[in-house]
Amino acid sequence: MGISKRIVDEIVKIVGPDGVITDEVELSVYEADGSLVYTARPDVVVFPRSTEEVARVVRLAWENRIPIVARGSGTSLSGGALPLEGGIVISLARMNRVLELDLENETATVEAGVINQWVTDALMGLSYQYPIDLGYYFPADPGSQRVSTIGGNIAHNAGGVKCFKYGVTVNNVRGLRVVLPNGEVKFFGGKVVESPGYDLVGIVTGSEGTMAIVTEALLRIVSNYESVKTILAAFNSIEDAGAAVSRIINLGIRPVALEFMDKLAINAVESGPWAGGLPRDAEAILLIDVEGSEAGASAEANKVVEALKASGAYMVRMAKDRAEANRWWGARKQAFGSMGFVGPNYITGDGTIPRKKLPEALRRIREIGAKYGFRIANVFHAGDGNLHPLILYDERRPGEKERALQAEEEILRMCVEIGGTITGEHGVGYLKRSLITLIYTDYELNIMRRIKGVFDPLGIMNPGKIFPG
Amino acid sequence: MGISKRIVDEIVKIVGPDGVITDEVELSVYEADGSLVYTARPDVVVFPRSTEEVARVVRLAWENRIPIVARGSGTSLSGGALPLEGGIVISLARMNRVLELDLENETATVEAGVINQWVTDALMGLSYQYPIDLGYYFPADPGSQRVSTIGGNIAHNAGGVKCFKYGVTVNNVRGLRVVLPNGEVKFFGGKVVESPGYDLVGIVTGSEGTMAIVTEALLRIVSNYESVKTILAAFNSIEDAGAAVSRIINLGIRPVALEFMDKLAINAVESGPWAGGLPRDAEAILLIDVEGSEAGASAEANKVVEALKASGAYMVRMAKDRAEANRWWGARKQAFGSMGFVGPNYITGDGTIPRKKLPEALRRIREIGAKYGFRIANVFHAGDGNLHPLILYDERRPGEKERALQAEEEILRMCVEIGGTITGEHGVGYLKRSLITLIYTDYELNIMRRIKGVFDPLGIMNPGKIFPG
Repeated sequence: MGISKRIVDEIVKIVGPDGVITDEVELSVYEADGSLVYTARPDVVVFPRSTEEVARVVRLAWENRIPIVARGSGTSLSGGALPLEGGIVISLARMNRVLELDLENETATVEAGVINQWVTDALMGLSYQYPIDLGYYFPADPGSQRVSTIGGNIAHNAGGVKCFKYGVTVNNVRGLRVVLPNGEVKFFGGKVVESPGYDLVGIVTGSEGTMAIVTEALLRIVSNYESVKTILAAFNSIEDAGAAVSRIINLGIRPVALEFMDKLAINAVESGPWAGGLPRDAEAILLIDVEGSEAGASAEANKVVEALKASGAYMVRMAKDRAEANRWWGARKQAFGSMGFVGPNYITGDGTIPRKKLPEALRRIREIGAKYGFRIANVFHAGDGNLHPLILYDERRPGEKERALQAEEEILRMCVEIGGTITGEHGVGYLKRSLITLIYTDYELNIMRRIKGVFDPLGIMNPGKIFPG
Repeated sequence: MGISKRIVDEIVKIVGPDGVITDEVELSVYEADGSLVYTARPDVVVFPRSTEEVARVVRLAWENRIPIVARGSGTSLSGGALPLEGGIVISLARMNRVLELDLENETATVEAGVINQWVTDALMGLSYQYPIDLGYYFPADPGSQRVSTIGGNIAHNAGGVKCFKYGVTVNNVRGLRVVLPNGEVKFFGGKVVESPGYDLVGIVTGSEGTMAIVTEALLRIVSNYESVKTILAAFNSIEDAGAAVSRIINLGIRPVALEFMDKLAINAVESGPWAGGLPRDAEAILLIDVEGSEAGASAEANKVVEALKASGAYMVRMAKDRAEANRWWGARKQAFGSMGFVGPNYITGDGTIPRKKLPEALRRIREIGAKYGFRIANVFHAGDGNLHPLILYDERRPGEKERALQAEEEILRMCVEIGGTITGEHGVGYLKRSLITLIYTDYELNIMRRIKGVFDPLGIMNPGKIFPG
């Protein structure tokens, strides 16, 4: 073990004996994250209950130059939560309280360990602490929202199905309580939208735990629209579905969500317990939400329906009620988790492309799949052009995992080639750090490294991430 | 003159003799900006025609440690364009081309000297270079959009009447071409929404020329909605108008714009050539846009009308056509420039408050006005809570200007006290740099200073701005 007994004793003094894991077997639970490709074992995992406790642990690490990695639900798909150099993993799991819902200012204050969905649950009166439906929701809703934490969403600047209208995480965060690497606690931002001087909330958001530990977030919430209409369309060709996306964008209305799934993704989810009645025979589906007043949403939904039919959809349906819409969206959001029904292992790819290059990107992914001999399912957020190719492989066959990773890299290089980038929301982390040179020059990376240095001069915050080794 | 003849000759070599001003009389034009309170004369003003020319001038300044201030239209209200230490003013006035309109990616690429309104003009087919109406517009629309430049909007992260729905400038900028202080040219960001690593576009936006010179911007554009409805409501009391703002926000629809003007502001604009038919007898008006499909916008407008009536509006009108709506909005956008019709001099205050504290803020502004003996008009963007108190004074009376500045400071302290901040969109610049300590600790300011140092280690970029002296 790389950390002395004295340090562990100090940590126990801060968080209590039930807040520390040092047992080798128990530590092994924390040696991996959702990326499932590499492992790295921490020396100790700590479960603080307050910002104050986080600050004291960080201060101890600072004084002893021990690496720190913050961890939410551990669902990072880029190795973001891997403690590459050992040291202390600070789990935010116990900091899971919704602290304040402020309708006057349209904000919610939550601890970083709160699951994304819980924020909306509290606003909808679905939590025991907040039993009244306030008519608001939190609009940054990644597909993983039932499991990923707000802290993790902020670390990776996650997208979401509603980002078509509401933007990505950074557009929905107004303030952050952070523990800086020396253990000082600061609050950046505030309840009002405007923030003079440099945008510290913006620079910390998306920095993947390399600058500071976020312990609380002040989130923007939005009021429910009177009506939401959900539309499902099925296509016999991917090209037609791609053309429909363009056509809808050019309608002069802006859907709140516009999502694409291909046949393999549909069949994966329809094979499991989250089956939502999606058409298994479709080559591709689009799932679309529009919102507004009852009359407004109806009118816009009708326009979308017409555009879908004009683009060659062989089936277009409007959800008859929220229950049906929730089944469709539930299926969409469980697409990743359902891949196990169609193959033993998979890699969740994450790239971004110019929205209208979807057909070209899917064609090239098919070619890459054929070249390596892998089936690849695809899910796409039209809002931010974020494409998730799900590469099916079999770990039991020697060398197959490595080839699947190669296929993923080839897909990401293709994304850059057609004008996109190497991640949409899962971060650069450890897995993609060598690819970041595809999109940034040394000069830009040096600026970023030096900005990191402003916050973290000793380099103890999540070392080995983002920047090429 | 603080710059040697050799340097001037070098600059002339870069931009040609017609691109340089060194004559004392001509320089005096550039010794002030829209803040009209302080003056500072540059040693030389340069008018480059390209990023390359900007870069060569900046390189020269870097090698000789000469201060540089970028200048757009010079409409800064915080002294942002004042060359406090002399040196080189780089005017972006000649870099005024719309370079590309890309509907596929919903972006426009423009030079930094382009006037904000020109971007939308080009998209609407109103420019000779782009004569076809493309059905798009640029949604970040500060009140000054007919005169301020995109570069200036980015420097100050300007708000706008549409920021209720579309956010402030930073939410509508996807990429920036920047000249760094050493003369290197870089492009941050890109056409896709997602950007891995640290958010360099975000940190440069709002940095008020203290990090780099923006020479080109890649802007987000949005498609026109089928229909926009404009509603004008008049109130006998400011409190009722404030309550109406809250009521509309809680309707479950989101107007694209929601603006407030008080009686003095109304009467100023109605006294001049931009009179738009606003009711002079009203204590306050609200001007509201909703957009959507024809049916949707109508339905939402009707809801807004009902809410306005329920809040005690004595007059509510829907614009009968775009011409009438444009007259109303034209009057609103000329409110600042019309203050000269009701008093000899005025200060354009700029603070931000929690949106729903509008009645309290206005009451306290009235008290501050009474205390100092000034009339104060008020314009308010409900979208970002940005309040503009326009303080009328008479410069010819000794000491009155100083007392008007004191009144402004008192108003800004009140904004901070009720949970707001010291600027909405006009920046900290020179005039408010001593007030920035009201909202940031030394620690935060030090982080910001060190981030500035990453970009500008020699401190030549817009010295004396943002940070307290």
